[in-house]
Amino acid sequence: MTYMEPAINNNYQNLIDRLKEISYLNGVMSTIGWDQEVMMPAGAADARAQQISALAGVIHERMTDPGLGDCLAALKEEDSDSFDLLQACNIREAQRNFDLDTKVPKRLVMEMAELSSRGQHSWVKARKENKFAGFAPVLKQFLALKKEWAQCVFPEKDAYDANIEIFERGTSMADITPTFERLKAELIPFIQTIQERHYQPDTSFLQGTFPVDKQEALARKISQDIGFNFDQGRMDVSVHPFCGGSHPTDVRIKTRYKESDFIESLYAVIHETGHGIYEQGRMPGYQDLPVSESLTMGIHESQSLFWERMIAQSKPFCVHYFETIRTTFHDNLHRATVDSFYQAINTCKPDFIRVEADELTYPLHVILRYEIEKGLFDGSMLVDDLPEIWDTMMMKYLGIKPPTDTLGVLQDSHWSSGAFGYFPSYTLGAIYACQFYRTLLSEQPNIAKNIESGDFAPIKQWLNEKIHSQGTLYTPQELIQRVTGEALNPDYFIAYLKTKYNTIYQLDS
Amino acid sequence: MTYMEPAINNNYQNLIDRLKEISYLNGVMSTIGWDQEVMMPAGAADARAQQISALAGVIHERMTDPGLGDCLAALKEEDSDSFDLLQACNIREAQRNFDLDTKVPKRLVMEMAELSSRGQHSWVKARKENKFAGFAPVLKQFLALKKEWAQCVFPEKDAYDANIEIFERGTSMADITPTFERLKAELIPFIQTIQERHYQPDTSFLQGTFPVDKQEALARKISQDIGFNFDQGRMDVSVHPFCGGSHPTDVRIKTRYKESDFIESLYAVIHETGHGIYEQGRMPGYQDLPVSESLTMGIHESQSLFWERMIAQSKPFCVHYFETIRTTFHDNLHRATVDSFYQAINTCKPDFIRVEADELTYPLHVILRYEIEKGLFDGSMLVDDLPEIWDTMMMKYLGIKPPTDTLGVLQDSHWSSGAFGYFPSYTLGAIYACQFYRTLLSEQPNIAKNIESGDFAPIKQWLNEKIHSQGTLYTPQELIQRVTGEALNPDYFIAYLKTKYNTIYQLDS
Repeated sequence: MTYMEPAINNNYQNLIDRLKEISYLNGVMSTIGWDQEVMMPAGAADARAQQISALAGVIHERMTDPGLGDCLAALKEEDSDSFDLLQACNIREAQRNFDLDTKVPKRLVMEMAELSSRGQHSWVKARKENKFAGFAPVLKQFLALKKEWAQCVFPEKDAYDANIEIFERGTSMADITPTFERLKAELIPFIQTIQERHYQPDTSFLQGTFPVDKQEALARKISQDIGFNFDQGRMDVSVHPFCGGSHPTDVRIKTRYKESDFIESLYAVIHETGHGIYEQGRMPGYQDLPVSESLTMGIHESQSLFWERMIAQSKPFCVHYFETIRTTFHDNLHRATVDSFYQAINTCKPDFIRVEADELTYPLHVILRYEIEKGLFDGSMLVDDLPEIWDTMMMKYLGIKPPTDTLGVLQDSHWSSGAFGYFPSYTLGAIYACQFYRTLLSEQPNIAKNIESGDFAPIKQWLNEKIHSQGTLYTPQELIQRVTGEALNPDYFIAYLKTKYNTIYQLDS
Repeated sequence: MTYMEPAINNNYQNLIDRLKEISYLNGVMSTIGWDQEVMMPAGAADARAQQISALAGVIHERMTDPGLGDCLAALKEEDSDSFDLLQACNIREAQRNFDLDTKVPKRLVMEMAELSSRGQHSWVKARKENKFAGFAPVLKQFLALKKEWAQCVFPEKDAYDANIEIFERGTSMADITPTFERLKAELIPFIQTIQERHYQPDTSFLQGTFPVDKQEALARKISQDIGFNFDQGRMDVSVHPFCGGSHPTDVRIKTRYKESDFIESLYAVIHETGHGIYEQGRMPGYQDLPVSESLTMGIHESQSLFWERMIAQSKPFCVHYFETIRTTFHDNLHRATVDSFYQAINTCKPDFIRVEADELTYPLHVILRYEIEKGLFDGSMLVDDLPEIWDTMMMKYLGIKPPTDTLGVLQDSHWSSGAFGYFPSYTLGAIYACQFYRTLLSEQPNIAKNIESGDFAPIKQWLNEKIHSQGTLYTPQELIQRVTGEALNPDYFIAYLKTKYNTIYQLDS
């Protein structure tokens, strides 16, 4: 105990009070955003937009409050030994967020917000008219604004790396490019081989009509079985599958059900459940503080993909649920078997749309977008050339050419809000997921048996302990090292894909 | 145009900007409150309480912002001719609210908030244990706090009048007591006569089982028919019937359905629809400003009772809907007729619970509470004596004595949050509704024919024009004078009840 301690505590307590208030208000914002999409009557759209804008103003005011800056400055003067690991993390994260929020001039913030709103409309219109040229001006403006933004927040970084940093802190083109080159070298010829294969799994029993109420009941059951806590969450129907919520104790999954395709709907729910289990597993006692927040988009995606692919697309999972699924959709599945079901849900087929892609072709959709973003930032590609570039790359990577811009370069919403640097997270997440799973397998050799018998608790517990409850204590690079004993390594992902698909497509390995 | 005009506009614009921000944030608060009751998973209760508290803090900060006080002070210096009727109203209302929010010391605000939260628990517990004594200390403390509060905000008023002023501005004991005395003198013997009457309407066909899904469909249809706009509102199931919402374009009715009693559920929906139509009918273009707000609790209640009693409990309404209702619940109602249905839904029977009371006995439930509140404030009654006082008055007014405190003095939640002065609004609303209806009848002599044919639009339009769109432009006293040509007059209410129930109970009139 030293004489100075009360002063230190005051500054830290002041910080915590401010951070918690911001967290509470952000929670409120999440709920009214959810309500807007799921519950709000259509006629309330204008009023809701004004309400959201008012609340956003309050939150921005709190996040950029000079008093918060003073508090952080005072904490910087303190002896760093005064703080434990968690406290130090809260201070570090708060400083990072404060810098991100205050280093950008208000004029630029407003220009980006305005363009984001206009960009959304322009993108929807361009898709409807199937004309990329209508959207190109927005893309050009966003590129200029995001370069300017990068100069403000991370002046020492390349502009595209600065954009990646927001989604994948600590990861840059220097890491991503070689990883993606390796994936291309392995996956492009492998997919080609599969396509040329005479043997193709039978998927006919996955076509037909699958009543939505049965799909919903099945999805809720499986989501709960694998670990989603419905006492601290909800699941509702909406336009886009998404997992959000106002708090780790109020996690909300939205999904949609297609009568013609229960596999897409079911695996979307499992995917979102993976995100939900991450949020529900945040560090108890610190749930309104930065230390408990999810780490990066890639780590978040690793958790959704872990459950969707590593667990739910596995043979043991099919063994456990096949009878339930066959009984649910008896008219369609009566002649299927565990093996034919497993193969049918794991087919590989190049197609135009990223969000519908299988796990083998998905990385190439991502790599294509990454290379385009990189090219746009370094000037080696021009916005006006994108439709042509897109088609050429699709042909090169997946052997197909989209018939329209809407099925090609206009398919994703990300660029309409200027979210450059987001796409790599999807495939980084897949690589993380695979490497985490390999470690889990080595630590819990009975895992396949557990899945076959429907015992998912040890998996959830392992993820809770190793990843979810670690929050932002470590960088993603430190985390993967701590959990798996080595740096992120795409070899495991490639080996997993090859082993699995060699078996399914009866190729010699 | 004078040289000073820009300065005036600046102050007024500043006020409007502040008032709109407060309105937007209050809209957000309504939505998360609704979500908490209807949607939130149970496990999120603690987090939600913190979120609501944080938002309440922000709203309180905005409402008591010294900048708002400066702005109002500057406007007071302006020539009052500079403002039109609507602007003057916004300024007047803003000043009233600012005074109410700033004249109370923070210590007292916090004590009331704390007691309100504790009082709720104490009330629930006392009800469960059926022991008024457990709740008495809270009631005593609230009485002391509300007297202190009255001294702060309306030092010139009697303390109970100050509490009434919050719900019924411009109305005081001097108005209410003689009105209620008159009701007592007329209704107590009238109810007694009815009870002693040999003829009692047959209500047996209203007993039985009424499937909830059919009740819900019927309630939604009738709510929409009479004018609730589902494009700017919702209807959901919850514990207590209530009408709230974040905005006139997002009005939300909550209700419950009892399988054993479709009349209670249906008329609760019609009642809440009346509140909803008021909110949806607020002055267009001014919906986030005080000038468009609802006037008082009594006027609001006049609108719900207008639809529930004046319209939906009338013979023409039964004529229009009887076949629909009989078809919906054919098993139960096949032997009923329009006449027997009309009589059955309009029976008079003294009972213990206010919210389940018919329109004849309801005023006596209210008067009893009013007299108790008045007695508590002027010291002529003591909290500890309330169970005995309650029983004695119930016996005197309605000839029955509740077997337990829970069915007696503990039945309402109002006192647990210190809402003294609220109860009179229910019966003032009934008197307003009756007087409004009499004027409507004289202006639209075809009204019965319109109702019989299901044409409710002229009624809604009349209410929209005469009441809803008038917002807070006039005092309730001015409003009733403008709409009906005279001051509030309980004679019409008494005459309406006597005429109606004389016919139903086949008494000589």
